[in-house]
Amino acid sequence: MANGGPEIEQLIQLMARLPGLGPRSARRAVLQLIKKKDQLMVPLSAALDRAVAAVKTCEVCGNIDTASPCGICADPRRDNGMLIVVEDVADLWALERAGVGAVKYHVLGGVLSPLDGVGPDDLAIDGLLRRAPEFGEIVLAINATVEGQTTAHYVTDRLAGSGARVTRLAHGVPVGGELDYLDEGTLSQALKARTAI
Amino acid sequence: MANGGPEIEQLIQLMARLPGLGPRSARRAVLQLIKKKDQLMVPLSAALDRAVAAVKTCEVCGNIDTASPCGICADPRRDNGMLIVVEDVADLWALERAGVGAVKYHVLGGVLSPLDGVGPDDLAIDGLLRRAPEFGEIVLAINATVEGQTTAHYVTDRLAGSGARVTRLAHGVPVGGELDYLDEGTLSQALKARTAI
Repeated sequence: MANGGPEIEQLIQLMARLPGLGPRSARRAVLQLIKKKDQLMVPLSAALDRAVAAVKTCEVCGNIDTASPCGICADPRRDNGMLIVVEDVADLWALERAGVGAVKYHVLGGVLSPLDGVGPDDLAIDGLLRRAPEFGEIVLAINATVEGQTTAHYVTDRLAGSGARVTRLAHGVPVGGELDYLDEGTLSQALKARTAI
Repeated sequence: MANGGPEIEQLIQLMARLPGLGPRSARRAVLQLIKKKDQLMVPLSAALDRAVAAVKTCEVCGNIDTASPCGICADPRRDNGMLIVVEDVADLWALERAGVGAVKYHVLGGVLSPLDGVGPDDLAIDGLLRRAPEFGEIVLAINATVEGQTTAHYVTDRLAGSGARVTRLAHGVPVGGELDYLDEGTLSQALKARTAI
């Protein structure tokens, strides 16, 4: 195949390993990069170099940032009122985008999954137990999947002796969601947790 | 926003400009890059650096490669029997993947589009006219859009004096396609161009 030489072929193969890109869209993306070499390819290459050099995992909470402790842990406007426990850095970023307030986070780095060989020692649970006594409330914002809920139960049990108040996110109708498209579990939880208008 | 510092935010913004990635999927892609730093982010950064340094546009045909003339133009197994004219490098690569044989190509770099200010001088038509007398047949493999067909007519007119035989790709039913989902234009063309079994 003479599709642009080994350098381009290798770039396509690496791009195809990104989530959301397959072999065909990776090829389109690389062509676009090459066509916009000065506006896109050169800046992206430089940004990747900088990110490779700068990226760190926060030793306190597990967030990804360019400093450790990360910008959130080091933020003086955040107090120790609420610690939100998430599976993944993406969940932390989603909560920050939602503007949930002056909270802190703890990234577990996954969920318990015996089938995939993920046990308690593979998650940042010890770190959570160390931090827990400093906080007034610990909110488990773990995904509402089977593994996520198993993990939430396990974490709740482990936190029992810490004295912290442990809560979880509310289940209910998503804002903008249509009842017709919701599963029965969500609907019955939303009815149970109904609030006065 | 403390979503990972300016280096990461800038990387996300650049990734979001790739076709097929929006702001959300770019963020997911960057998180994946960071999580697989050694297996994915470092190699991708190096591959981009190498590609930035190596990529050239072929001065003969307009293909993108790491040499000029490109691997296709320099390939001694390809003769001057057939020159396939395409809009874009992506079309050239698609034909090469389809294994169309020992042909050569000419990339126009777009289609005529008065509304977008693309005239004949913006396309590689002069180069095509210079190359045309060397070839036995010139196949216009230009997309079957309105602009593409206008461009094909224009190129055919310009090639009239060159003595080369000018053809176009067949219209018809895509292999694996269902008649039910095809537009009337394709169906009527496929019937007109029917072949004996």
